[in-house]
Amino acid sequence: MLQNEFQKIVESRRSNRSFDPNVEIPNEVIERALKNAILAPNSSNMQLWEFQWIESRECLDALIPLCLNQSAAKTAKHMVVFITRKDKWRSRAKWNYEKIKESLDGRPGKLQNRALNYYKKLIPLVYFNDPIGIASFLRKLTSFLLGIQKPFYRLGGKAEQRIVVHKSCALAAQNFMLSIAAEGLHSCPMEGFDKKRVKRLLQLPIGAEINMIISVGKGTEKGVWGPRYRVPFDEVVKRK
Amino acid sequence: MLQNEFQKIVESRRSNRSFDPNVEIPNEVIERALKNAILAPNSSNMQLWEFQWIESRECLDALIPLCLNQSAAKTAKHMVVFITRKDKWRSRAKWNYEKIKESLDGRPGKLQNRALNYYKKLIPLVYFNDPIGIASFLRKLTSFLLGIQKPFYRLGGKAEQRIVVHKSCALAAQNFMLSIAAEGLHSCPMEGFDKKRVKRLLQLPIGAEINMIISVGKGTEKGVWGPRYRVPFDEVVKRK
Repeated sequence: MLQNEFQKIVESRRSNRSFDPNVEIPNEVIERALKNAILAPNSSNMQLWEFQWIESRECLDALIPLCLNQSAAKTAKHMVVFITRKDKWRSRAKWNYEKIKESLDGRPGKLQNRALNYYKKLIPLVYFNDPIGIASFLRKLTSFLLGIQKPFYRLGGKAEQRIVVHKSCALAAQNFMLSIAAEGLHSCPMEGFDKKRVKRLLQLPIGAEINMIISVGKGTEKGVWGPRYRVPFDEVVKRK
Repeated sequence: MLQNEFQKIVESRRSNRSFDPNVEIPNEVIERALKNAILAPNSSNMQLWEFQWIESRECLDALIPLCLNQSAAKTAKHMVVFITRKDKWRSRAKWNYEKIKESLDGRPGKLQNRALNYYKKLIPLVYFNDPIGIASFLRKLTSFLLGIQKPFYRLGGKAEQRIVVHKSCALAAQNFMLSIAAEGLHSCPMEGFDKKRVKRLLQLPIGAEINMIISVGKGTEKGVWGPRYRVPFDEVVKRK
């Protein structure tokens, strides 16, 4: 049972906002953390994510002012920009389809056929968009009408699509941060940055969005701003 | 160093869609996992989340059809509904403010003053909404204008607010799933449900949203549908 070890890792993970300038972080640490990130569960295994690992001094220096010069950025040895890539849905659906096809060593069974149909027919229904929003409107209308009589999956618009990819990306981000903590090192997830300029710096297409930027280093005492506060367990957990 | 143990936990976590009907899951397992979930980092420590832990047979049976009768729901011993509570921003900002005030044993220093101002002035600016969307419009306009000259945090509209709370909730969800894996047990995160009916069943207010529903049990072999596929590392990780 690894529960005790997991407990220790979760408890040792605190956001640290000031890293030790004298401790370098080996590339292997980031690589392992990224490999763990990728193993997170994600919506329909679409993996609509990208990770830009910033490690050159030049690129770090360009990113710091875009993170509004916060100390977690200024003192970071590495930064990883977690990015959603909703725009890649077509190629990822195809990739999943091909993977399932490849794995078949004969005629597809019922389960495989369902999976193939899922990526060929259902995913396009969920992710397709047009400039005016007709697809979104029709999705919502269909869900509403079919949902009157019985439970039905509520297809969403652009905002819901964005939420789905950001959620999956955050699952990966948490794996990443815990992995760093498991190495006895520290991280800080940042949302305070100029997303427009970061996208430009990293030459990202319109359909990409920054999920969060995570800086990594050896934390210092002054990097932790205070005790960890949480609202009481019974206020956020309801048992039914 | 706990890295090896963490690796094992991450690798053992696979979504399982069919749980063993003969293995009961002790309440302590779910409780520990929820306590770990709550320790996830989250946006501005606002903790705009709620966890409805469904364990009574009656409530599980009511939830199964709303999860479209998928086997991960039908065979689950427990289900936890992860919920975002953007609507609680006022009380959480106040709670954070009070916590910082409490912790002061004299006059606030520069750092504390900044933190107090953050919850009193900045958070309302970020979360306030009106029915017509004037606040959203003004936020976006201000960010645009102030962002012309120099890097500026891009304040968003309702969609961006929803994304922020869903991201934080997903970080908690990943802690939860890893915690279950660390106990040698299994989980399945679900997005395929009728969110409208789930909200009604759980008597959630308009401002609450379902992030995901995670079912828990002792997994079976047939619950894992196939090998774990991921697109190659170099396709999603860019080094700069």
